[in-house]
Formats: sequence, structure tokens, C-alpha cells
Amino acid sequence: MKSFISLEEGIDILNKNVKSIGIEEVSLLAGIGRVLSEDVFSKIDNPPFNKSAMDGYAVVYSDTEEGKKSLKVIDEVFAGSVCKSEIKKGTAVKIMTGAPIPIGADAVIKQEDVTFKDGFIEVNKTVNAEENICLKGEDIKEGSLLVKRNKRLDYADIGILASSGITSVNVYKKPKIAFISTGDEVLDIDKDLKGGKIYNSNKYTILGRLMELGYEVSYVDHENDSFTGIGDKIKRALEVADLVITTGGASVGEKDLIKEAIGYIGGEKLFWKINIKPGSAMLCSKYNEKIILSLSGNPTAALTTFELIAKTTLEKLSGKEELEINREKAILINEFKKKSSSRRFLRGKVKSDANGQKVEITQVKSGNGILSSTLNSNCLIELEAGNEGVKKGDIVTIIKF
Amino acid sequence: MKSFISLEEGIDILNKNVKSIGIEEVSLLAGIGRVLSEDVFSKIDNPPFNKSAMDGYAVVYSDTEEGKKSLKVIDEVFAGSVCKSEIKKGTAVKIMTGAPIPIGADAVIKQEDVTFKDGFIEVNKTVNAEENICLKGEDIKEGSLLVKRNKRLDYADIGILASSGITSVNVYKKPKIAFISTGDEVLDIDKDLKGGKIYNSNKYTILGRLMELGYEVSYVDHENDSFTGIGDKIKRALEVADLVITTGGASVGEKDLIKEAIGYIGGEKLFWKINIKPGSAMLCSKYNEKIILSLSGNPTAALTTFELIAKTTLEKLSGKEELEINREKAILINEFKKKSSSRRFLRGKVKSDANGQKVEITQVKSGNGILSSTLNSNCLIELEAGNEGVKKGDIVTIIKF
Repeated sequence: MKSFISLEEGIDILNKNVKSIGIEEVSLLAGIGRVLSEDVFSKIDNPPFNKSAMDGYAVVYSDTEEGKKSLKVIDEVFAGSVCKSEIKKGTAVKIMTGAPIPIGADAVIKQEDVTFKDGFIEVNKTVNAEENICLKGEDIKEGSLLVKRNKRLDYADIGILASSGITSVNVYKKPKIAFISTGDEVLDIDKDLKGGKIYNSNKYTILGRLMELGYEVSYVDHENDSFTGIGDKIKRALEVADLVITTGGASVGEKDLIKEAIGYIGGEKLFWKINIKPGSAMLCSKYNEKIILSLSGNPTAALTTFELIAKTTLEKLSGKEELEINREKAILINEFKKKSSSRRFLRGKVKSDANGQKVEITQVKSGNGILSSTLNSNCLIELEAGNEGVKKGDIVTIIKF
Repeated sequence: MKSFISLEEGIDILNKNVKSIGIEEVSLLAGIGRVLSEDVFSKIDNPPFNKSAMDGYAVVYSDTEEGKKSLKVIDEVFAGSVCKSEIKKGTAVKIMTGAPIPIGADAVIKQEDVTFKDGFIEVNKTVNAEENICLKGEDIKEGSLLVKRNKRLDYADIGILASSGITSVNVYKKPKIAFISTGDEVLDIDKDLKGGKIYNSNKYTILGRLMELGYEVSYVDHENDSFTGIGDKIKRALEVADLVITTGGASVGEKDLIKEAIGYIGGEKLFWKINIKPGSAMLCSKYNEKIILSLSGNPTAALTTFELIAKTTLEKLSGKEELEINREKAILINEFKKKSSSRRFLRGKVKSDANGQKVEITQVKSGNGILSSTLNSNCLIELEAGNEGVKKGDIVTIIKF
């Protein structure tokens, strides 16, 4: 097992050990937010036929070339039906937006550009060939690529697939997640606080975040500071879940209970501790080909490693090609004076406009456990190891939630 | 009924007519994504007691002042339990991170700053009063405001509330939405395309978008171009839904079927047509104090008014104080040459970094029905009425999805 590794090494180890959990076919609408496991091509041309872009009259365009001309209106066609009449020079068919262009017509003249009288229209304007016609396949050609493999499907993707008559999609299976909090000092929120106890906020932040990200939680439990108890619950959780997240037990007194728990069940430890602050105390391990991510019991430390490690791991488990931290740059609008020998992550609030992306450090205190610093933040700010603090106007790296 | 109004007038009319649909108490975790209907205050101090920030020894700080000194270790205390011994000068208690500070102690000296031998520690470093102690209420004071009314609860809010022992929250009720597509030309995706028909993409884009935004859809239907049929289905939908969205029927041939449908059921028309492109053909009406938003049948027009009108209406219905379009500025990185007499919305893709927010027009064609332009977009770009087109480097207004 590697110890005290860099964040990059941790990501690397996970990239080698995390695989998506398989593929399933779901109905189109159930595909929202899911990751496509194959390229999808259009089954049809779109529009499927030449159609009118306007309310007006389908004509032979050359009939409108010499200015005022009288055309006999021989039929009408609405969207959703087909005109049985054929247009020849000197005739026109009244046509509604979306209706198929009748045979023989090659342009549509707008309603406001003609005068209708006694079954004839007088053409007041010339039109070009194909004017006011949406051509068959103009938007999408049959066989063309609609949505690429590994795209997370949004509503626009679903709309394009629907318009091409795709009724179901193959997507990566959604991982089922288990959460186990640990610690003698932790009480659930429906209990009365007794001496030395604190409320279990990790359970609610992590489950809340998993809900926000759309993951299904299949197992939730708590265990006191007992490595056998923790180990047994991890084993039980892995019977119903694809990945386990634990909090706490990473440095309880002189013991690293979580390491003992993984040893007790015969799991493989992949790495222990990352050189970041907060969140260094983290164990990553594997049991029966499934990953266990053991985060610190400190609320902000747990949330930091959740965003950096757990969120990215879950993304790969759900079909993304690689674990990946998305970094952007932003201009700092306040300061953080504390030097730091290790790489540090602060919570911030980023806002963007044409003048740039500006980020404010929302974390006024630096303690691992200061949960109030999480409020109103929407990103992490990453400060390099050995930094001397940062000041207003500095360009910093941010990782958006 | 007002006609051909500005987008601002439309928003204004809806602000006057839309009210949140009531309040309900939900368990804490079910509060994720919901809008708080009242300020929530902390029931406890957080931390709830003075606790150790380190593994080490609880001491009387003045005992460490004169350098090397020997203190008798009289007890030990772990996180989650309370030390029964009282510390006096000359004694120390071994203490773990998170454990309550024993009576009599006023500082913690880190484990690495002492030498332990035969039941005594030798102090190798001085500590100050309260050093390595997280003070009771240091993070959050009892009675202090945790989360404000009208905040949409995220995982950090849920975490703070949990840490303060809040087990349930009062939130605005979630509106139930109905969707009715209309049009003779529209077929559902499981049918074979016949002459003049197109697939019903609006159903899938709108339902997909509602799912992304977390709304519950309680009624879905389709009706052909019959104003009585549409009216009857709207009435039926409003028996189970708080708001109805329809697509199509806004300018079918020479008839505005949706207006006739609202007339037929005796609904009140609030406004008809907005001066924007695409999406001008839209009817907003009211029946039994409930809102009906009738969007165009053109896919991109429907999606534009969905983002501008429907999304903001749903937000107020769900507890937001006012309907509000959030505008930002971005630098355009490509161009759109077409002049426009009316206010125009294009689809775009925005990216941000420290150098600014840059937006690309993803819509290469300008037709209302060009659904492929929706792909890979994440914002609308708003061009003012009477604009001469926009060019690379222009600062434009964007509305993020």
C-alpha cells in the first residue's frame, strides 16, 4: 500500500482500479442524466420530408418571377396531412407551417405576400427556388451521429433522440452507494446530545451530496469505534452496493480503526493518506473488486476528499472514461494569509461575468471541523504546497462543485 | 388580455398571478433541493462543549510556562466520552481529538511535544491558554441563524442543520406539473412515421428538462388539433396538477386553437404573444387560480420560452420570492450576422476562466424548428431588438440554463 501520496497518484491508482459496472437499456426519458454507452445515429432524415416554414401558398417559384401573376388555388394542406393534388405551373396550394410540400411545388410564398380573391391568388412578390421550405434532412441526415458515447444525456440530447424516433438508449448502470459513518462520539440527529457527543453531520452532508448528484444510496449505517464492527458492516454493505463510503476512524486516538477494519475483512489497501489539507487522513481500499473510500471524520475534510476523490470515482463508476478533476482559473477577491507547507483546499464562492471569474474565500477559519465554512460555497480553491498565503487579485485554481 | 407584450411585461403579469402552493414539513434529508419557508436557528452551541483539536494531553497551561516540567498523567479521555477526573496543577489527562476537555484543564499540548515515561509526561514546549482547544460555540452559537428563509437547500445547508440537531424543515410544497402536447402532425416516438407526421420531440425535451430541474410530472397527454379536446384535457390535467404546460396549437393554420381551448373552458387569458424570437407565439392563461403556459409547437421556440417563462414561473410556484431571469455578461467568440428587428435569443455554450466568460453561438441556423442547435448548449444569448447582428469580441448578455 502506498502512503502519503500526492492527489495525482491517488487519482491514478483509482483510475486503474475503478471500472464502470455494466450497461443497461432504458427507455428514452429514463436516460436523463445517464451516460450513453454507445454512439447513437439517426434512424431518419429530419425533417422527414420537405415542409413549409410558413403559412402561405405552395407554388412553382418561376410562376412568381415576373411580378404580379394570378395562380389558381387548387387545394389546401395542413400540418400532419398530405396533399393529394399535384401542383403545375399556374396553380397553387394553400399550405400551413409544417405541412409537407405538395408534389410539383418548389417554393412557398407567404400569406402576406399574396392577395386572395375568388379562388385565385395574386402574387405580389417573387420567391426563389426552395424559399420558405425546410428541406428533408436539413436539420439531421439519416445515419448521422446524434449523440456520442460517454455523453451524459441532457434534455436537449433526449429531444434530438426523440425527434429521430429513438425509443430507448443503452447507458452505463447507475452505481448503488453505501454510506457508513463511524465514531463513538457521533450521535444521530434524533437523539439527545449527551456528554462528549456531537451530531452526525457527515451522514447528512454526504447523503445530501449523493442525492444532489443523482446517485442511489442502497445502504446507510453507523458503527462505533470497533474495527470488527466496521469491517462487518462494510462487508454487509458491499452485498448490496457497488461502492462504500465511510467517514471517521481514520485516526482515532492511536489507532487507525479503518485500516484495521479493512485488514480484518481481508481487503486490499490501495493507498493511505494524501498530501492535502484538509482531508489527508483518507484510506482507499478494495474488497471483492469493489472500492471502499474511507474519508476523515472531520466534516470539512470529509467533504474536500468527497469532491476530489469520491465524486470523480463515482463518475468513472457511472461510465465516464477517466476520473478527472476539472480545474479552472479565477481571480481572488479576498485573502488568506496563512502559509501552508502542504497543498491546501479552501472553500470559495465563484461568480462569473465578461470581466472574469471572481472567487471569494468563504472559509474564515481554517479548522478541519468548521462546518459553517461550507455554507454558501460553490467551489474549492486549490493552493499549492509551500504557498505563502494568497492575496486579493491573485489568480487561483478553482474546482467547481 | 394583453397582446404582443415585452418579455418584462410577461414576467410582471406572472409575478402578480403566481403564488407558491403552500408549506409542508419534511425530514431533513428530504429537504435537499427544496426551498425553506422559514429562517432556521441553531438549537445548540457547536461544538457543544470545549473539545480537543489534537491528540495530546489536557493540561493547565501555566504548568508549561517554565519549560521542561513533569506532569502526572491521571486519566485518559476518548472522543465520545467524558473524563471523570479533574485536572489540577501538576497533572495531565491523555486526550484524543474531539474529546471534551476535562474539568480544570485550559489547554492541550500535542503528543509530539511531550515525552511520556512511567506515568508522567515531560513537557518540551509551552502552550498558551486555550491552545489546541475548539471552544464551545466557536463554530455556531445557540440561537444563531443557520439558513435563511427562501434558500434552496443544498448539501452544506443540510449538514449545518444536522450538526445543530434539526431533524425536519418547513419547505414550500413542490408543484405537480402537467404536460400536454398538441398537433395533428405529431406522433409519439413508438409509432411509425407516416406521411406528413413528425416525432413529438417537445414531449421529451420538456419532460426531460422538468426532470433535470427536479419537478414532479403528474399528467402527460397528447391531443390533436381540436380546441374542445385540448380544453377538456387541460381541465382534466388541472385536477391533478398545479400548472399545465402545453406545446403547439398557438398558430395552426388560421386558427389559434389554444386560445379557443382556453375560451371554451372559460379560462382567463393573461397574455398572448411576446416580442421575442423565437418563441413569440405563447399564451399564458389562468383557470381556477392555476396557470396554463402554452408554448409554441416549434421545438426551439418552445425551449426558449420554457427557459424564460416556464422555468421562472415554476421557481416562484416552488417558493422563490419572485420570477426572475438571471442575466450575466460574456464575450462572444464567434458571430451572428443576421439583423433582427425583434429581441432575439440564440443558443450558446459558455465557458469561464480568470480571463472572462466566453460564449460561443452553437446555433448555426436560425430556424425555429432546428432542434440540433440545442445540442451542447448551456445558455441563451440575448440580442436586443433592432440589433445588426453580433461579432467576435462583443460583450453579450447570457442566461445560463
